[in-house]
Amino acid sequence: MSAARYLEESREKVDQALQSLMPPEDSHPARLVSAMRYSLFAGGKRIRPVLVLAASGAAGGREDDALVPACAIELVHTYSLIHDDLPAMDDDDFRRGRPTCHRAFDEGTAVLAGDALLTMAFDLLSEGGQVTGHELRLQMVRELARAAGWRGMVGGQQVDMDSEGTQADLPTLEYIHTHKTGALIRCSLILGGLSANADESTLKALGNYGERVGLAFQVVDDILDVTATTEEMGKDQGSDAARGKVTYPGLFGLEEARERARKLVQDAKAAVEGVDATGRLAEIADYVLLRRL
Amino acid sequence: MSAARYLEESREKVDQALQSLMPPEDSHPARLVSAMRYSLFAGGKRIRPVLVLAASGAAGGREDDALVPACAIELVHTYSLIHDDLPAMDDDDFRRGRPTCHRAFDEGTAVLAGDALLTMAFDLLSEGGQVTGHELRLQMVRELARAAGWRGMVGGQQVDMDSEGTQADLPTLEYIHTHKTGALIRCSLILGGLSANADESTLKALGNYGERVGLAFQVVDDILDVTATTEEMGKDQGSDAARGKVTYPGLFGLEEARERARKLVQDAKAAVEGVDATGRLAEIADYVLLRRL
Repeated sequence: MSAARYLEESREKVDQALQSLMPPEDSHPARLVSAMRYSLFAGGKRIRPVLVLAASGAAGGREDDALVPACAIELVHTYSLIHDDLPAMDDDDFRRGRPTCHRAFDEGTAVLAGDALLTMAFDLLSEGGQVTGHELRLQMVRELARAAGWRGMVGGQQVDMDSEGTQADLPTLEYIHTHKTGALIRCSLILGGLSANADESTLKALGNYGERVGLAFQVVDDILDVTATTEEMGKDQGSDAARGKVTYPGLFGLEEARERARKLVQDAKAAVEGVDATGRLAEIADYVLLRRL
Repeated sequence: MSAARYLEESREKVDQALQSLMPPEDSHPARLVSAMRYSLFAGGKRIRPVLVLAASGAAGGREDDALVPACAIELVHTYSLIHDDLPAMDDDDFRRGRPTCHRAFDEGTAVLAGDALLTMAFDLLSEGGQVTGHELRLQMVRELARAAGWRGMVGGQQVDMDSEGTQADLPTLEYIHTHKTGALIRCSLILGGLSANADESTLKALGNYGERVGLAFQVVDDILDVTATTEEMGKDQGSDAARGKVTYPGLFGLEEARERARKLVQDAKAAVEGVDATGRLAEIADYVLLRRL
């Protein structure tokens, strides 16, 4: 199966699982549930949950055993987008070509929809301990909470916000990216590994891959923010730069930024060389990242 | 030991535990950690975590074994206050006599501080599975996620927001209160029971007590919103009524509301009659609720 086909099939699997796990549209309180579903089913590419499945497969597990942790990751990712888009933060009106949650509903509902999605992620992880074993599930809770919390994703968003309009240096830029986006991507790989009951050294290799791929994602996003059209991005072109945010092309120029992305993908693939039994992780890194440069 | 003394000593225990579990003030990112600590150490009475300890004791457990789950509950409670105070929701400038988190810092930081506290609660619960057993800890994660999520606290806040300025009926009022405040109070009792490895019937009795006490809290708060001075409340007197919120005194009048609170306390005590070995749960209900009427 080609990488494109694998990604598409996995995305469909994740979408189906999310549909079966989420409360239906007419659940009470309707406005809250509608807002949660609006943002969750907004046509996302489901890269993070697909990485959970691929990591589980790479570590010798059954991919389907990793579906619930995969959905938990996507809920956390979606919550982070809703909150980051708020007027008090990035103040974005559009995402993936549609009005952001607080524009389609209202700010209060958007805050709560994010809160509810984050909370539900832990509800999902707490289930199914019978399959994976309670200790492994509890370890997933810990990994996700650490990756998403003050030392992880939320910390990265705070530093990003704090550094807006300032001339941030490279260590600050790297802190932002390894935390704001990198931590959750790394966690996707770890959750996949834990679903397959992987040993310590496999988890470490998966984590290293996740760190590099996570950083590469951000470099590629920064590059596309400069080079892609508004239509391709689903958000205003050059909006990060216009807002005075530090970006890789801003710091290094476009060509050097591209070179960094390529090197990160190479390092990511090297990190899982002895682990990636299916070869999917290498394929995904090539397909999702290099193709877009 | 008198109820007052017990509450005070337990509060101190919880405060010490929170101090040891929270990142120190100078942790990076400093602004985020400061905001988390600002709201967490704002002089709260720690009623919910004290109920966790008391429930653990009542069910025959060691109270100290319940300290970490108790802290997790307080983190979730604090996050909910920060988000509820936001301009997009209740738009409150003061809480407990101090500027609210978004006034002392900024709105974006307040959203993130709430997110980080909520996330950290699950991090805390994921630890210490060695002591309580992994299955029990995982059950705590589930109970907390359900109590705090779309079917629980967040759902209650949504309906509260949706019904502002409308003439809500009694079922709506009760939905709001059993979810917005009741669910987390009930969960405090359950987490205490789980810390003591209580059996099903004990957990059920604790849950029933929690439901009644939770509702009584809200009725008493509504009454105090009408009768207490701004100084006593630490927020504007009559602010709920002024905002057009449905309240118990608004629906029933002051006397009937008082009668309801008394009846709820009575029912709560009856629910744990065979369980409350230490008698603390009955004392707390009397002391915290009846005394304030």
